[in-house]
Amino acid sequence: MFSKNKALKSIFDSSIDELCKSEGLSKETIIQGIEDGTMVLLGNPNHKNVTPTLIGQPAKVKINANIGTSPFKNDREKEMKKLDTAWKAGAHAVMDLSTAGDLDGIRTDMLNSCPLPLGTVPIYAMAQQYVARDEDPAGFSIDELFAEVEKEAEQGVDFMTLHCGLTRRGAEWATEEGERLLGIVSRGGSILARWMRDHDAENPLLTNYDRLLEICLKHNVTLSLGDGLRPGAGEDAGDAAQWEEVLMLGKLAKRAHEYGVQAMIEGPGHVPMHLVESQIRGIKAATYNAPLYVLGPLVTDSAPGYDHIAGAIGGAIAVMNGVDFLCYLTPAEHLTLPEIDDVWNGVKASLVAAQCGEVGLGRKDAVQRDKEISIARKELDWDRIAELAIDPALACARRKDHKDEKECAMCGKFCAVRMLSE
Amino acid sequence: MFSKNKALKSIFDSSIDELCKSEGLSKETIIQGIEDGTMVLLGNPNHKNVTPTLIGQPAKVKINANIGTSPFKNDREKEMKKLDTAWKAGAHAVMDLSTAGDLDGIRTDMLNSCPLPLGTVPIYAMAQQYVARDEDPAGFSIDELFAEVEKEAEQGVDFMTLHCGLTRRGAEWATEEGERLLGIVSRGGSILARWMRDHDAENPLLTNYDRLLEICLKHNVTLSLGDGLRPGAGEDAGDAAQWEEVLMLGKLAKRAHEYGVQAMIEGPGHVPMHLVESQIRGIKAATYNAPLYVLGPLVTDSAPGYDHIAGAIGGAIAVMNGVDFLCYLTPAEHLTLPEIDDVWNGVKASLVAAQCGEVGLGRKDAVQRDKEISIARKELDWDRIAELAIDPALACARRKDHKDEKECAMCGKFCAVRMLSE
Repeated sequence: MFSKNKALKSIFDSSIDELCKSEGLSKETIIQGIEDGTMVLLGNPNHKNVTPTLIGQPAKVKINANIGTSPFKNDREKEMKKLDTAWKAGAHAVMDLSTAGDLDGIRTDMLNSCPLPLGTVPIYAMAQQYVARDEDPAGFSIDELFAEVEKEAEQGVDFMTLHCGLTRRGAEWATEEGERLLGIVSRGGSILARWMRDHDAENPLLTNYDRLLEICLKHNVTLSLGDGLRPGAGEDAGDAAQWEEVLMLGKLAKRAHEYGVQAMIEGPGHVPMHLVESQIRGIKAATYNAPLYVLGPLVTDSAPGYDHIAGAIGGAIAVMNGVDFLCYLTPAEHLTLPEIDDVWNGVKASLVAAQCGEVGLGRKDAVQRDKEISIARKELDWDRIAELAIDPALACARRKDHKDEKECAMCGKFCAVRMLSE
Repeated sequence: MFSKNKALKSIFDSSIDELCKSEGLSKETIIQGIEDGTMVLLGNPNHKNVTPTLIGQPAKVKINANIGTSPFKNDREKEMKKLDTAWKAGAHAVMDLSTAGDLDGIRTDMLNSCPLPLGTVPIYAMAQQYVARDEDPAGFSIDELFAEVEKEAEQGVDFMTLHCGLTRRGAEWATEEGERLLGIVSRGGSILARWMRDHDAENPLLTNYDRLLEICLKHNVTLSLGDGLRPGAGEDAGDAAQWEEVLMLGKLAKRAHEYGVQAMIEGPGHVPMHLVESQIRGIKAATYNAPLYVLGPLVTDSAPGYDHIAGAIGGAIAVMNGVDFLCYLTPAEHLTLPEIDDVWNGVKASLVAAQCGEVGLGRKDAVQRDKEISIARKELDWDRIAELAIDPALACARRKDHKDEKECAMCGKFCAVRMLSE
């Protein structure tokens, strides 16, 4: 991997000491993980000041926050504030999913103002140009698409969602009458399915995969192999269309790896609880244990407004089963574009899920944190509790009315911790 | 059971038709569950207008909301508003955990104004009287304690947490140097442990258990056998002290059942994810499959401010493993007494957990709900989505800025659902 990917080597060399420290892993473990393709190191040398970020257990589970404009909510300033919020809340990466406004400008601003690895979905920029001219969103040519990918790689984008494993067969299976409740719910997937239908041709990202690898290799762009056919309803989870794409993603991850390009796999999506374990372990097995990046999983469809909670339930179980990277869901999911506080709450909910999963896995730092906050609780040491909490500011704020009291206001003099120590 | 407990029989007879309908269960299934002690029917005939409520899978998982005054936040009006909020949010039962003010008055107001089954912890009223006089909270006599239990039963309290299974041995194990990080965190448990220490005697609720059963039988008060030694830190989960009490609770549930008194078991508490399944299944097995009522479980200690989320993660997994009754955790847990919106958010988070668990278990109504909301999503039928959502008002409110648009503001013209249907 390192011998083929010089850009990766330079990022690795500049960050390995810091990585060993922050991840609590040996240099050998990290090298082996990257060589095996079970870890990826996000970082495009063109992204100045990027914090190289390691994804793949036993490295710590990472959180991604999706931000970006939409046609109904196109406020560039606000998206920059969301970027700042995601960063401060503790996200480890951000994806710019903008589909309205000056996409190049927004992307460049984000790259310039934030050290978190930035991901994009280049096909959105394609479709947006056509939509803006009131043309077919799938009207773009293959050359246009690759020009966009190359431009974004040169701008410094660290990882890109590209739905290379979506085949015509998969798209047909997903949209056949009587099959899925919800067909294709991935925006990128639906644009590509439309492209294949309109052009009567196979997926251009699949047929021109080596062209993509060449661009990615040059700039150490990590491929985030997109799940265009992820289930959009619990009822659709685990069907043939989903697995057809997973199998392709595994083959493509292997080919990327052989080429010297880092790749991770994107996963579901809407999955009921009894299927999360088999989905995660099944996808991992079929994709050569490449890092797995999931959206949720969302373990019920009935919680709009609380999808960050339903997603945290699925996410924590997913982490226990080997997931490496959690894409947040915010309270706005399925309803509207997230506001600033949705971004904060989405990141925090994902951090809670990761912490719960890592404690369950016995990861040293997570277990130690739980232990130390419990000791602080015994000592009623509120400053230390806040310091160790996933949201220190919130923990302080909730106690503001009685911050001079030793006990908390739930129990007051009935504090069980004190009842026996008096 | 029915032949011994006349109060239960009267509640059963008045509600069985409605119960069969709301639970989707046959009369025979419900009778068998109650006879076997795997279901309990909450409802004290002295609680006028109570909605008899069935607890025990395959009956639907129920949610309890804890409310009540505390010494630092003693606002009777606000607690009545919380009661109303819990009810409107969809709680199935409420516990009045008041420890400040006119406890008899608060309890009577709550019983008069709400048809949800009401639970209490009678030992709080005992301790509160002594604390109010600046005396030892464990100064009360056995007769005083039973007089309180009898009075509350006559007032109409439907279920009572009584820590009958807490033994001197268990309390010693939990508080021994070098054992637990957090000793005893149950308020009732710590009061009783103090009583045992101060009086140099065994737990009066254990030594006088038949006296308790006699009162409960008369009014169909369901015993909620309290877990005074539940772990208060993930690190403490599953230790000898916890299991010593669980074993006693099982024996006591059996004795209650033989006496004609309904009983459920209270469970943890702080439990890391890898232990939730073994805890829940282990407790069920050791307690003759009596209905299990858990607080969380809270699968990390590090999320103060987000304990409703950490609790929903544990709760959903617990439901998948057989838990019957979830006590909510609010965003205020471990920090302060919940405010009105905390009550709302706590109930909703628990409802999300129950829905996720029930979908995972394949429960017909939960699966159907997920399916119908997914169909509504495909049709972009926002009214129907809101109608089926766990929080219809919230789902509507989040769309208010663009309620005349067909698509949601996340994707707008990029709506994947529409991309292929055009």
